[in-house]
Amino acid sequence: MKRNIYLKKKSLNEAKEIVSRLAELIHLGTETISVIQSLGRVTAEPIFAKISSPPFHCAAMDGIAVRAEATYGATEDSPKVLTVGREAFFVNTGHPIPPLTNAVIMIEEVHQIDSEQVEVMQAAYPWQHVRAVGEDIVATEMVFPENHQITSYDIGALLASGHGNILVKKKPKVLILPTGSELVELTDINHSEPLSKIIESNSYVLSHLIIEDGGDPVRHGIVMDDLDKIRETLFSNYEKVDLILIIAGSSAGSEDFTRSIIESSGEVYVHGISMMPGKPSLLGKFKDKPMVGIPGYPVSAILAYEELVKPLLYKVLHLTRPERTKIKVFPIRKIPSKLGTEEFLRVKVGKVGNKFYASPLPRGSGMITSLTKADGIIRIPSFSEGLEEGQEIETELLRPLEEILNTIVMVGSHDLILDLLANHLGKDYPPLFLSSHSVGSLGGLLAIKHGICHMAGLHLLDPETGQYNLPYVQNYLKGIEVKLITLVHRDQGLIVQPQNPKKINGWVDLLRKDISFINRQKGSGTRILLDHELQKLSIDPAQINGYEKEEFTHMAVASMVASGMVDAGLGILSAAKAMDLDFIPVAKERYDLVIPTIYVEEEKVQKVIEVIRSNRFKEEVLRMGGYDVSRTGDEIRITYNQAPMTK
Amino acid sequence: MKRNIYLKKKSLNEAKEIVSRLAELIHLGTETISVIQSLGRVTAEPIFAKISSPPFHCAAMDGIAVRAEATYGATEDSPKVLTVGREAFFVNTGHPIPPLTNAVIMIEEVHQIDSEQVEVMQAAYPWQHVRAVGEDIVATEMVFPENHQITSYDIGALLASGHGNILVKKKPKVLILPTGSELVELTDINHSEPLSKIIESNSYVLSHLIIEDGGDPVRHGIVMDDLDKIRETLFSNYEKVDLILIIAGSSAGSEDFTRSIIESSGEVYVHGISMMPGKPSLLGKFKDKPMVGIPGYPVSAILAYEELVKPLLYKVLHLTRPERTKIKVFPIRKIPSKLGTEEFLRVKVGKVGNKFYASPLPRGSGMITSLTKADGIIRIPSFSEGLEEGQEIETELLRPLEEILNTIVMVGSHDLILDLLANHLGKDYPPLFLSSHSVGSLGGLLAIKHGICHMAGLHLLDPETGQYNLPYVQNYLKGIEVKLITLVHRDQGLIVQPQNPKKINGWVDLLRKDISFINRQKGSGTRILLDHELQKLSIDPAQINGYEKEEFTHMAVASMVASGMVDAGLGILSAAKAMDLDFIPVAKERYDLVIPTIYVEEEKVQKVIEVIRSNRFKEEVLRMGGYDVSRTGDEIRITYNQAPMTK
Repeated sequence: MKRNIYLKKKSLNEAKEIVSRLAELIHLGTETISVIQSLGRVTAEPIFAKISSPPFHCAAMDGIAVRAEATYGATEDSPKVLTVGREAFFVNTGHPIPPLTNAVIMIEEVHQIDSEQVEVMQAAYPWQHVRAVGEDIVATEMVFPENHQITSYDIGALLASGHGNILVKKKPKVLILPTGSELVELTDINHSEPLSKIIESNSYVLSHLIIEDGGDPVRHGIVMDDLDKIRETLFSNYEKVDLILIIAGSSAGSEDFTRSIIESSGEVYVHGISMMPGKPSLLGKFKDKPMVGIPGYPVSAILAYEELVKPLLYKVLHLTRPERTKIKVFPIRKIPSKLGTEEFLRVKVGKVGNKFYASPLPRGSGMITSLTKADGIIRIPSFSEGLEEGQEIETELLRPLEEILNTIVMVGSHDLILDLLANHLGKDYPPLFLSSHSVGSLGGLLAIKHGICHMAGLHLLDPETGQYNLPYVQNYLKGIEVKLITLVHRDQGLIVQPQNPKKINGWVDLLRKDISFINRQKGSGTRILLDHELQKLSIDPAQINGYEKEEFTHMAVASMVASGMVDAGLGILSAAKAMDLDFIPVAKERYDLVIPTIYVEEEKVQKVIEVIRSNRFKEEVLRMGGYDVSRTGDEIRITYNQAPMTK
Repeated sequence: MKRNIYLKKKSLNEAKEIVSRLAELIHLGTETISVIQSLGRVTAEPIFAKISSPPFHCAAMDGIAVRAEATYGATEDSPKVLTVGREAFFVNTGHPIPPLTNAVIMIEEVHQIDSEQVEVMQAAYPWQHVRAVGEDIVATEMVFPENHQITSYDIGALLASGHGNILVKKKPKVLILPTGSELVELTDINHSEPLSKIIESNSYVLSHLIIEDGGDPVRHGIVMDDLDKIRETLFSNYEKVDLILIIAGSSAGSEDFTRSIIESSGEVYVHGISMMPGKPSLLGKFKDKPMVGIPGYPVSAILAYEELVKPLLYKVLHLTRPERTKIKVFPIRKIPSKLGTEEFLRVKVGKVGNKFYASPLPRGSGMITSLTKADGIIRIPSFSEGLEEGQEIETELLRPLEEILNTIVMVGSHDLILDLLANHLGKDYPPLFLSSHSVGSLGGLLAIKHGICHMAGLHLLDPETGQYNLPYVQNYLKGIEVKLITLVHRDQGLIVQPQNPKKINGWVDLLRKDISFINRQKGSGTRILLDHELQKLSIDPAQINGYEKEEFTHMAVASMVASGMVDAGLGILSAAKAMDLDFIPVAKERYDLVIPTIYVEEEKVQKVIEVIRSNRFKEEVLRMGGYDVSRTGDEIRITYNQAPMTK
């Protein structure tokens, strides 16, 4: 089994220089198209006006056209009388003024004596209320140069200068070739069977990015991991396009064929770029056509496109890339990054108080949601080992800044109903947005303490008092005035196999020798709950098979159960439902929102509370199952004269 | 003749509040569309994942899937041997790992003993190189809320979560009704006759703006200024659309019908807005449909659209408008503006030295080129009487900032070959741009003196010495080191009627009693030339019929001749050609570029000089006629030890 070894990895800047040379291999043809279909197209020659605009001297007002000299001396006391049809001509705005007239008097300043005579009370000056021929555009003048991208405004100038059709560059045609035996077309899925392949989506994302960048994508169907098939497909398609993108097949695995095909029928210039995500990108030439090997993971695919293919398309079209808005942000925590690699960190951005804070999203290149949920991208340069907490750094925004200013930042424990809340808020009170970051209940409390969020969600049981949340708020947030508002009570339960084949009915079943369990990490609200319940029942945790194995989310627990690795775990109903598992409720916990008093009166925060208290929201929460909304929206009174919580 | 009188004019902010209420009249329907056609569309319901992504635990690397526990203890010295098909399973990236396996060992770390056995030299940890089911998206989780606009990235998340189709809001349908008897469709023009109507273009510009803003434009053909026809058209179309735009017919002229129609079949809320351009806008309701009366002049039409219709569409779609990049600029001169009116000043922007300078473009609302040529828009608030020279003010950019940074700013006398120069520069050296502002030769010298341009174009004859340009540079630019480079020699001549019916052959013919003349303004290069020639011939200017009448541009002179008002004027060949007039050359003048030495070595300025010196450029200039390029690109030596020029 021969394996690829990356050519000496290139820096992103080196790769971009090679891209720039690849662009020179492309020579776009031209085509004549209708002006009214030309939005976004690029002129292939300078465009000269065929006619002037206006095409004649015309009235700029409704009124009478006159020769100004004929009105000289007119006053209110001694008006000038003009003969209609000889010295004065009625004209409407935009109509030509008759030969030898050179001024228009507004209709409201004209006194019509009879059908043959009018009186004017004031002298007109030459060219008064007249738009002279060519005032805007002069016939023969250059309206647009070559390489100009047509805007909506430009369509007006083109029509006004007499152009129905123009010569433009053809759009660069880009072949998109998704490869991989693990892939399936969404349309080929048999919904009655569990999926055993991954839905191919990269090619469609790339197609749309190419359209946005002025190219013409030609998507080929999925090609299996088969050297001959991929080669055949390339040979029968390369002549029809300007650029080839092969998705996947360029990493260093055993079935990654792109490089060997390109090496045998073209040239490989770069294989491996020190960027993250996007490392396994490849740059080369298949026959005489430039080609880019796009990595298969979705975030890598998009970043490889944006850093390599997008500049190539802009260069070929002779256009300047529009820049993204950039703002300075503070990372909410230290973010280490690999020296020698340029990292593209996807972040949520929120403005809390006077500062913009950035929370990193998952960094895996397989997480498309790390891009769809991102508000911005921070480039961590290759010479940096990462970002310090509190280090101001630039973010390129992926959304309008105003959306970020209208965003309420929530941090803490995750629950699916936060999505419902966000949805309701956006629907009922546009343009508000709720952005929630899952860092666990305790993480939420710390975020409030550090002033980096507007609210935090938590479900923390105090084993000493049996109380939820209040003791933690009193202990952790001393000196910070906050409100505590109940979002929901929710069921925690044992997540088990479908149909509950092992007949698990409660805590004590976890002691059975035929039952394996998966635990949550120390410090999570769910773990605290488990330990509390076990203690109440005097169950020795060591007796539970699997107590020592930890997962970090409800979904990871459910996923362990679904895979058959374990029989049970503790979690919430929605996680069980997501995996089609059974759920045995064992406890009810209170999930509250903590909101610093300084934010609670802000209108956008008030709107969140209004939504929480609305019946429509409560009804939808109930429909999800596993929730109790009888106290939803209630404020919990906080007193600070209690003794601090002990651990 | 009953005339409209504006309702009490509203401020733009008041008008915007009314727009916001009008938006509430629109209730968009929904439709199911294919995800791969959904770019830019807006979700009509929250979208929940149908399947998880990945849909199963899958290999993140090519290699063997194992149960991690089976590898514990493996080292290079004592490898673990695993049986293929029972303890170890070959898997490729993206494929499911077999049940009860929980880790993948990369193929390059596996030693294959034979077809049945493999050896591993290092223990795997659980979930190593495995992408867990739902790692990116968990089935049932909300992928996007309602009112979310689909991006290219989002298409990936939608497909990965099992969506082939989604429910989106229908696009708001907008009827566009151009009115006016002065209008003609470009396609209806008979090219063998001179135009007597104006080409309708506003409706196409608005259509494209609407498309860019997510709406669905429905353009109606031109409707004549006829109350019944316009009313009929509205009645037979209003039910099919969500919003009505009537172009023209809302100013205060006699044939402006929009208001009376709307008043009789709906309601008028606003007529007249204190904005410029855009004042005659109208807001109302026809039957139950919101309508906007759009002024007929192209810049007014676009600004009325952008300030009133665009926010309405964004509100209806629940979207936030993307903001334009804003930068601080210095106006190159004082710009007075009307108190009480919000003015939208179109400007060219250039960076010279460390500052961004803004030069105002023509302010007339009929000048579409004031938008197509603009780099930015300065909003002069209604409480302001205008901008002071040197007052820093914000500009919204209409182009990428990078384009502006790549722009060479040229100020001075206009000549059509500057367009050729700009075109060549952009073509040969993208991404460079040349932006030229016509302020006359002397204006160009002053711009150099004030440091607000990179170069200036001038053709100034010194009557004392008979020399071009040099004496002026020596006199006006004392203390500023500059280079003087010849662009062209060009013919000045008498512009006369086609076929020269009055047989004008030279200066002396201007003394004839049957000849009327039009002059240029004092201080212009052309006027200085005329006076110099008359003096040489000892002709008394007072003997020339029309010497005292002045126009400000070559084109205005040509236009006076074309209209038959005068018989002759002095100007350049290209102006005569643009109006199909005859031209009698009477003098040759030198047009030079002045470039401060501090800019001359900048790469972008060097490129301009390279283009000027290229044969391709010279050949194209020659093809225009009226130019001599034999000295083009030559540097004129400047000496400063001469006596100052006297006037």
